[in-house]
Amino acid sequence: MPRRVKIEQANVEAVRRLNVVDPVLVDVLPAGEVIPGMEDRMVLHSGPEVGWERMCGAQRGAVMGIILFEGWADTPEAAEALAGPGPVTLGSNHDHGAVGPMAGTISPSLPVFVVEDRATGDRAFSSLVESNQEFGDYHEAGISTLLKWRRACAPALSEGLQSQGGIRLRPIFERALAMGDELHNRPHAATALLSIELTDRMLRARVEPDRAADAQLFFSSNPFSGLGVAMAASKLMADRIKGLEYSTVVSAMARNGTEFGIRVASLGDEWFTAPSPHVDGHYLPGFKAADAGLDMGDSVITETAGFGANLIAGAPGVLPLVGGSRAQATE
Amino acid sequence: MPRRVKIEQANVEAVRRLNVVDPVLVDVLPAGEVIPGMEDRMVLHSGPEVGWERMCGAQRGAVMGIILFEGWADTPEAAEALAGPGPVTLGSNHDHGAVGPMAGTISPSLPVFVVEDRATGDRAFSSLVESNQEFGDYHEAGISTLLKWRRACAPALSEGLQSQGGIRLRPIFERALAMGDELHNRPHAATALLSIELTDRMLRARVEPDRAADAQLFFSSNPFSGLGVAMAASKLMADRIKGLEYSTVVSAMARNGTEFGIRVASLGDEWFTAPSPHVDGHYLPGFKAADAGLDMGDSVITETAGFGANLIAGAPGVLPLVGGSRAQATE
Repeated sequence: MPRRVKIEQANVEAVRRLNVVDPVLVDVLPAGEVIPGMEDRMVLHSGPEVGWERMCGAQRGAVMGIILFEGWADTPEAAEALAGPGPVTLGSNHDHGAVGPMAGTISPSLPVFVVEDRATGDRAFSSLVESNQEFGDYHEAGISTLLKWRRACAPALSEGLQSQGGIRLRPIFERALAMGDELHNRPHAATALLSIELTDRMLRARVEPDRAADAQLFFSSNPFSGLGVAMAASKLMADRIKGLEYSTVVSAMARNGTEFGIRVASLGDEWFTAPSPHVDGHYLPGFKAADAGLDMGDSVITETAGFGANLIAGAPGVLPLVGGSRAQATE
Repeated sequence: MPRRVKIEQANVEAVRRLNVVDPVLVDVLPAGEVIPGMEDRMVLHSGPEVGWERMCGAQRGAVMGIILFEGWADTPEAAEALAGPGPVTLGSNHDHGAVGPMAGTISPSLPVFVVEDRATGDRAFSSLVESNQEFGDYHEAGISTLLKWRRACAPALSEGLQSQGGIRLRPIFERALAMGDELHNRPHAATALLSIELTDRMLRARVEPDRAADAQLFFSSNPFSGLGVAMAASKLMADRIKGLEYSTVVSAMARNGTEFGIRVASLGDEWFTAPSPHVDGHYLPGFKAADAGLDMGDSVITETAGFGANLIAGAPGVLPLVGGSRAQATE
């Protein structure tokens, strides 16, 4: 059989595999309890493995923040000393079945969304989208959301899910897409629908009402909560094609603020990288493109699985945020 | 001042008044406790007052259903005897500050959404959208949703709202519109966002967790729950221009399945009517346009206030339901 035909058949199979995954949000648990290969003093990050020396400023800040969150150090300086040439091991989320937004740092005690394919038992993981520490903020205020997530919200969600069973994500995502989400920059409907399902489970599981209400408020008041869940589901889908012989379908895209890397299904875990691109975006008053870091984060796993930019022309509410016309989005 | 200028000025004032209303969902209470002029054996209905003799079949069925729901009769025949030339008084929702979907029947013990303008204390009311009895189904199954609403869901929502305060609807509607709702045929996002707010209030008010979870399930699993709230808010807005001298802005549109009526701001409570139009819609297999009843319901109050069809070109998810292209919707 000519190689061209083998490739075509493999790519048809890749699309079939992507579509057959049935992701279920089964738990929210500390990374150290569920992520394969997660060691005691390890910090995972977004994008290809990069190492402290080549790591960009925002990601370095996030690593320092997550070290302070873990309590391995008491000051930013001490945190930096641990991460630099120090005893904390750095690694890529993608090598552990995980993804994370922006700097994407995941450490052992950080609760992650656990998404499982019920048919195969395969799992993937994602951290929370919280918009402070993930951008490199290591100050007390920057990590306060993660502290609340670990202390109060994640355990309440976990109690509900463990007691009442997981949440099938396909029906949630289908409804969310029909409500204008594209599940990356616009996960608002998915967040609301997931919040309702999670609260139902917490109440049926007899989680104390104020704890349940606090967890619901935490989850629902950040419209990007659904993105973390969508990222874990997308990683689960994309991992299904990893190692598929002859397939030229991209199985991962990810950036660490230094490099943009892709993996190709038939080529396994090898990264093909280029420098992270400049982002042509909207800036806060007083800032310009030259002040910005480079493209960063694992959230592009949603595009890898077929969501996000692939759907943006059907999610017109997002266009004002990212800029551009419907015609450009379709193109 | 020429009459033409007086009219123009009055209509500018009408638009100002429509936009200044700040609707708050303050309670869910039995109609008999809150709707002005609601008498003991009264049934209100959608559209202009029509009387039993000229009432269409679907609306007659709904009146019979609500009489059985009230327990004023035990059989459909006995219910019909009460409503026909009988002791039950019929009236139009719009004459009582109220609106209702489809047949739109409201009876004393039926809990209604109570929406209040905080600045003026003005109130408007709407019944629940439930899609059985409102279409004329008076059988036991047809009224079972209303029985559950009265027994379990509405009291739980009321406890939450009374204890924790009302829900400002402008921020909810603004977010829902940005999520693809037009707040009439497509209130899905409003339903989800309201459900989260209502559940928060129930939990903070210490409503027993299973009751709160059941009420959340009742409210959130029907994507049209938000329509009832949007209708009450729209009625509150539209009533603000009633009686505005010289204004030619339409202050009410409503159908009872026999007649389509409009009211004009400066002309007060007078209805201007025409026969209810045939609806060119989608039909279930085996049915055709000739089998269908005529246009019915108060839900067009959402268009009166500026939502619904006025926005449908920006709510692309609705177009497959109602038919037509984006260009037609814009037109």
